[in-house]
Amino acid sequence: MNVTTPTVLLDQSRTLSKIDQMVQKARALGMGLRPHFKTHQSAEVARWFLAAGVRKATVSSVQMARYFVDAGWNDLTIAFPINYREWPEISQLADRAHINVILTCPEALPLLLYHQGANLGIFLKIDVGYHRTGFDPQSKIAITHCLDQLQSHPNYTFKGFLSHAGHTYACRTRQAIIQVHGQALGIMQRLKEIYHPKHPDLILSMGATPSCSVADNWQEVDEMRPGNFVFYDLTQVAIGSCEVTDVSVCLACPVVAKHGDRKTIVVYGGGVHLSKDRLAWRGTTIYGRPVKLDDQGWADPDDESYVTSLSQEHGVVQASDALFQTVQIGDLIGILPVHSCMMCDLMKSYHLLPDGAVVSMMSKEY
Amino acid sequence: MNVTTPTVLLDQSRTLSKIDQMVQKARALGMGLRPHFKTHQSAEVARWFLAAGVRKATVSSVQMARYFVDAGWNDLTIAFPINYREWPEISQLADRAHINVILTCPEALPLLLYHQGANLGIFLKIDVGYHRTGFDPQSKIAITHCLDQLQSHPNYTFKGFLSHAGHTYACRTRQAIIQVHGQALGIMQRLKEIYHPKHPDLILSMGATPSCSVADNWQEVDEMRPGNFVFYDLTQVAIGSCEVTDVSVCLACPVVAKHGDRKTIVVYGGGVHLSKDRLAWRGTTIYGRPVKLDDQGWADPDDESYVTSLSQEHGVVQASDALFQTVQIGDLIGILPVHSCMMCDLMKSYHLLPDGAVVSMMSKEY
Repeated sequence: MNVTTPTVLLDQSRTLSKIDQMVQKARALGMGLRPHFKTHQSAEVARWFLAAGVRKATVSSVQMARYFVDAGWNDLTIAFPINYREWPEISQLADRAHINVILTCPEALPLLLYHQGANLGIFLKIDVGYHRTGFDPQSKIAITHCLDQLQSHPNYTFKGFLSHAGHTYACRTRQAIIQVHGQALGIMQRLKEIYHPKHPDLILSMGATPSCSVADNWQEVDEMRPGNFVFYDLTQVAIGSCEVTDVSVCLACPVVAKHGDRKTIVVYGGGVHLSKDRLAWRGTTIYGRPVKLDDQGWADPDDESYVTSLSQEHGVVQASDALFQTVQIGDLIGILPVHSCMMCDLMKSYHLLPDGAVVSMMSKEY
Repeated sequence: MNVTTPTVLLDQSRTLSKIDQMVQKARALGMGLRPHFKTHQSAEVARWFLAAGVRKATVSSVQMARYFVDAGWNDLTIAFPINYREWPEISQLADRAHINVILTCPEALPLLLYHQGANLGIFLKIDVGYHRTGFDPQSKIAITHCLDQLQSHPNYTFKGFLSHAGHTYACRTRQAIIQVHGQALGIMQRLKEIYHPKHPDLILSMGATPSCSVADNWQEVDEMRPGNFVFYDLTQVAIGSCEVTDVSVCLACPVVAKHGDRKTIVVYGGGVHLSKDRLAWRGTTIYGRPVKLDDQGWADPDDESYVTSLSQEHGVVQASDALFQTVQIGDLIGILPVHSCMMCDLMKSYHLLPDGAVVSMMSKEY
């Protein structure tokens, strides 16, 4: 493989198969699918979704919305609290596409009413237990007040309630994911029941890759917004969302040093490539798992090797005897990432397998 | 301040003062200074070093070496194990500038002897206790063998022994830093004593911002290579390298949500801006500390507020009562970073204070 510096390998067939599975799942459940594009951030990967019949997407910044509108997407939800400092950019996008934004707390409403001037769909973000942001589902007075204010506003269309069960990331079994999802679902169903009479068009939009991957009960939910599933990663394996064979990205890293006394391999591939996201694994903390590479892709990881630390550019791999003996300085090895979203954001392009084509992403300067 | 998205503020006068202090320290000790440029990665910040009389620098990748050679620097040490997959690029650079590389383990020597063709200075990296990479200083046979092989090679010049006391990052007092530095210094002095008779031009090059900031004993050391000191960060404050008033970069973040029930402020500023580097602080884990901003710069942080979690784009600040009450949605607040090197690498440009000029960095595509 003609790779000289840390490079993200993307196994296209694995990714296409994940996209297809999620499209089929949403279709079978009669739900819309609005995948989150923050994981791949690539107009080319987005075209794979388009080819599978997906027409709506989710993004996590105004910049990312602009990138995908420029790439032809015309129905986007910016699933991040409205940043009023970017209101002119949001307004411009709203002139070019259907843009939904999310209102995440009562204190943000006056600014929304004050700014005006942009035709926007508005979702109320509901805190279903993650406690990052979102309306408290018990605060009916605050929710009702918001909806009444939005209804009287000519530019805004209340779209419905949106949630992200980020606390599924603390789960470590499929059963636990299903339980957290069930609680979130109950909260959302109850809101629909209460507000549907006055807002008959409202929809429920629910996210988080663990629930979307594992849960089968989506009654009354109108769309789901999984993101990470497009590539998965070691965190999702640990949560129980997928198997390690489902992970479809891997960082190819040149081997630059070996230390036989402690069975470590030093690779060119550090925190500026993999990110510093870590994972508790078999009683230790890891930053990735090494895999052997060939031109077609990568082998499954062994159970004794892992990335034990990352500096800015260095990665240190604690290697099994077998891995240590077969890997030489100058070779490439792959590292399965702890968090694919963060790795891809850092790397800004993909090396497609099997053909080696370069797939671009949104650049920093976009 | 006309900032709409997360932006690194760089307090130029604080940085200039740190550069001046380190230049004075090296001069007073009769040592060379070869600062590590991986923290700032900016040709413009490098010019501030040039103005202070610095002519040599350290980088952590071949790409970064190319960037600074293009910017006019002609004496660089690539302080990362030689990546043989980039040998053609290393050769090209060696034709344009004085390039030193580091040999970090005996297993890397045959490849160096095999490749040839480039005029390079070679440092032997010595493991002074960090155990990331480097020759075991006890392995006199391996070290002697390497030096003999290098001496018989027409293209390579053995420059000396180089160390990075990365284990100073585990220190939490100045006294502890001085102790770790003292041990590393003893190891390096002993090597100089042994190999100086046969290699009279060899130098000792020692790094790590904590030691360079705090230690005063550098006897027999010929150059030091601090990097992070140019900006410092909360980790260096925790280690004891500097005071919080020495930190000269700060991420300006739009405030996008507030939650009064738990006194949290949600900012636009997440793992893709600050990195996921974390720090143990007062019994908890933090990702930064918030500060109030004005057009001139930032106030000191209060002792009750900190960044408690980061998602891809969100940061959640646990706020003191005073901070919570004075900060409104739409405002900007600053976040002092846990690790400035990682934040700057992610952000790719600086907003200079006080004048607001944009200072560029090496881009991803360079």
